[in-house]
Amino acid sequence: MTDFAATKALFHLPDGIVYLDGNSLGPLPRAAAARVSQTVTDEWGEMLITGWNKAGWMALPMALGDRIGRLIGAEPGHVVTGDTLSIKVYQALASALAMRPDRRVILSDTGNFPSDLYITQGLVKMLGDGYELRLVAPEEVAEAITDDIAVTLLTEVDYRTGRKHDMAALTAKAHAVGALAIWDLAHSAGAIEVDVAGAGADFAVGCTYKYLNGGPGAPAFIYVAPRHADQAPPALSGWLGHAAPFAFDLDYRAGAGIERMRVGTPPILQMRALDCALDIWDSVDMAALRARSIELSERFIAGVEAACPTLTLASPRDPQNRGSQVSFRFDQGYAAMQALIDRGLIGDFRAPDIMRFGFTPLYLDEADIDRAIEIIADVIDNALWDQPQYMERKAVT
Amino acid sequence: MTDFAATKALFHLPDGIVYLDGNSLGPLPRAAAARVSQTVTDEWGEMLITGWNKAGWMALPMALGDRIGRLIGAEPGHVVTGDTLSIKVYQALASALAMRPDRRVILSDTGNFPSDLYITQGLVKMLGDGYELRLVAPEEVAEAITDDIAVTLLTEVDYRTGRKHDMAALTAKAHAVGALAIWDLAHSAGAIEVDVAGAGADFAVGCTYKYLNGGPGAPAFIYVAPRHADQAPPALSGWLGHAAPFAFDLDYRAGAGIERMRVGTPPILQMRALDCALDIWDSVDMAALRARSIELSERFIAGVEAACPTLTLASPRDPQNRGSQVSFRFDQGYAAMQALIDRGLIGDFRAPDIMRFGFTPLYLDEADIDRAIEIIADVIDNALWDQPQYMERKAVT
Repeated sequence: MTDFAATKALFHLPDGIVYLDGNSLGPLPRAAAARVSQTVTDEWGEMLITGWNKAGWMALPMALGDRIGRLIGAEPGHVVTGDTLSIKVYQALASALAMRPDRRVILSDTGNFPSDLYITQGLVKMLGDGYELRLVAPEEVAEAITDDIAVTLLTEVDYRTGRKHDMAALTAKAHAVGALAIWDLAHSAGAIEVDVAGAGADFAVGCTYKYLNGGPGAPAFIYVAPRHADQAPPALSGWLGHAAPFAFDLDYRAGAGIERMRVGTPPILQMRALDCALDIWDSVDMAALRARSIELSERFIAGVEAACPTLTLASPRDPQNRGSQVSFRFDQGYAAMQALIDRGLIGDFRAPDIMRFGFTPLYLDEADIDRAIEIIADVIDNALWDQPQYMERKAVT
Repeated sequence: MTDFAATKALFHLPDGIVYLDGNSLGPLPRAAAARVSQTVTDEWGEMLITGWNKAGWMALPMALGDRIGRLIGAEPGHVVTGDTLSIKVYQALASALAMRPDRRVILSDTGNFPSDLYITQGLVKMLGDGYELRLVAPEEVAEAITDDIAVTLLTEVDYRTGRKHDMAALTAKAHAVGALAIWDLAHSAGAIEVDVAGAGADFAVGCTYKYLNGGPGAPAFIYVAPRHADQAPPALSGWLGHAAPFAFDLDYRAGAGIERMRVGTPPILQMRALDCALDIWDSVDMAALRARSIELSERFIAGVEAACPTLTLASPRDPQNRGSQVSFRFDQGYAAMQALIDRGLIGDFRAPDIMRFGFTPLYLDEADIDRAIEIIADVIDNALWDQPQYMERKAVT
């Protein structure tokens, strides 16, 4: 029901490249170059300040939020875009803690993306007063949800291994002890079927430059469950979250519902690029995407394991327990990844030894997967990674 | 020493428009369209994830920060760009409060931009524990700096009237009572001569889409004085402010100096547009800019006052006490501004009765000012604003 050959044609992919890193930065939707250009030239250039009304800039954060909302199973009107994911984590967490003033413990796991933990540590330090970040191993989360927990802050899909938490079960457990559940969907939105409403999530946050293909530095998003939307304090209470931003009152009054999670002036050029990317998503059925993702990743695992016995699967073997990435452990993973990139296969490396490959059915097919397996087999089996130029670490890996 | 005819040629200005709203959104630098296009097509499109290293994306927040630093008198290496101004206000304020743990009062004034006050109110509420935002009239700030003040949070130039605080004097007063001084430079950076180092400012923040011409939603900037840079806690402690972001440690360690004020993934398309705008600023001498700004605004005031006795100057008459804008009060200011815009003169309106005009020597000259005066005289003296279509309020004004 989704035509993946048709979606593939809507992306620009450089010649000779197999791109298994859409889980870090999605590729360019072909239409984005013209759309961004038009925004710069015809809107900024010609409309100047009047673009906020005439070109609809001011409405973009909510409009884009709603289109993302469909992909994560949110109720219409309850997602807004803006800022970065780290900022949105902070906003969700501070808001949730204010809603559970009698508790002091934030529960997360050691597989969470470090920025979520760093942001939490900063907030805990600022709040003082007995606040605590409690970290357990990912497989111990369920039993660690005890009745002193204020908030669970979990990333559904592990950025290194692709291991997937059971969002519905953990959320139910959190609610059973009176805690609130925040879900980070960085590796879920556009990667797998997500149903934040069905799972009962209280807050969800995510980024749009990975599976959603919004471009480098594309804005983040935040979801607040309708039952909380008019009560949740926004924490970062900026003017565009005010009930009447252009009244310029001296006192803050939170806007209605999710609008209050807006903070400052939205990044219009980034939002237009994201807008283009979401045009493609509008045609995608998420169940079909998930089925195709599993098909491609199973083919990849089978091929790599057959060809390279020295690589160890770091991801769950059962695709139901994985997101849309596959990781292998290899002691010389950093150098090996450089060697792969040099040969046209782009994946990425995560310390200490994870070689990570993302599966993105919108623009990958069997031929890409088979070519990837060939290149990996060549690099690993012939130790092509064992070259000084592949050992040297770059700033961003 | 700065050739303002030459800088004017570097901007695209729509035909038939006199643009006196560069204090809200600067116009398009001609080079920006191609630069942003190239970033989209050649960098995002061709380099994909490797753009973070190959195209230098990861270094942009600091590189742009340094170029802004020169315009505000900052020491090299002590300004970084990112996020929005409201977020940077929060970061500076939370950081400053943590550095004065024995005090609870934040001093600001009723002329401050409301978002700064909203952000402060949100933080005060979150911190609880006796924290307080104390608001006084702008002219009472100096005497209100008493020894219970933890932090002064002031915008140098009033967004409505253009009234300019004495940054050096108020900072000295704050320091004399043991307080820290945060300066919001939203209407200063690129508008007037600023010397944060000379004035002894502890923190400064600002936006880049007004006088700096970075485009709609361009990133903000933050300055931390070198004496604090390695001690100031970043408050929003995201991964790109970590000492080693790509080590993916579980514990936050603040990066060196201003780098710790980075939070999440930078908006690359916006940063490239800003990069282009700063190319123009590299050729500008700030003393020459200030002299030219005063020359143009004095010409404007004289012309408008001679032609329109019903308008009342809302800005300080002495140009030394003004930023680079001129405001007039007029009961029907909203409708009058719509009528001006309809006739090709773009300024803006700020409640309740302020008609606001920005002076930006990079792309305005005497002919523009004289044409503006003509249009204003026509609209006001002939009551052309008295039409139903000019009364209807738009979302963004």
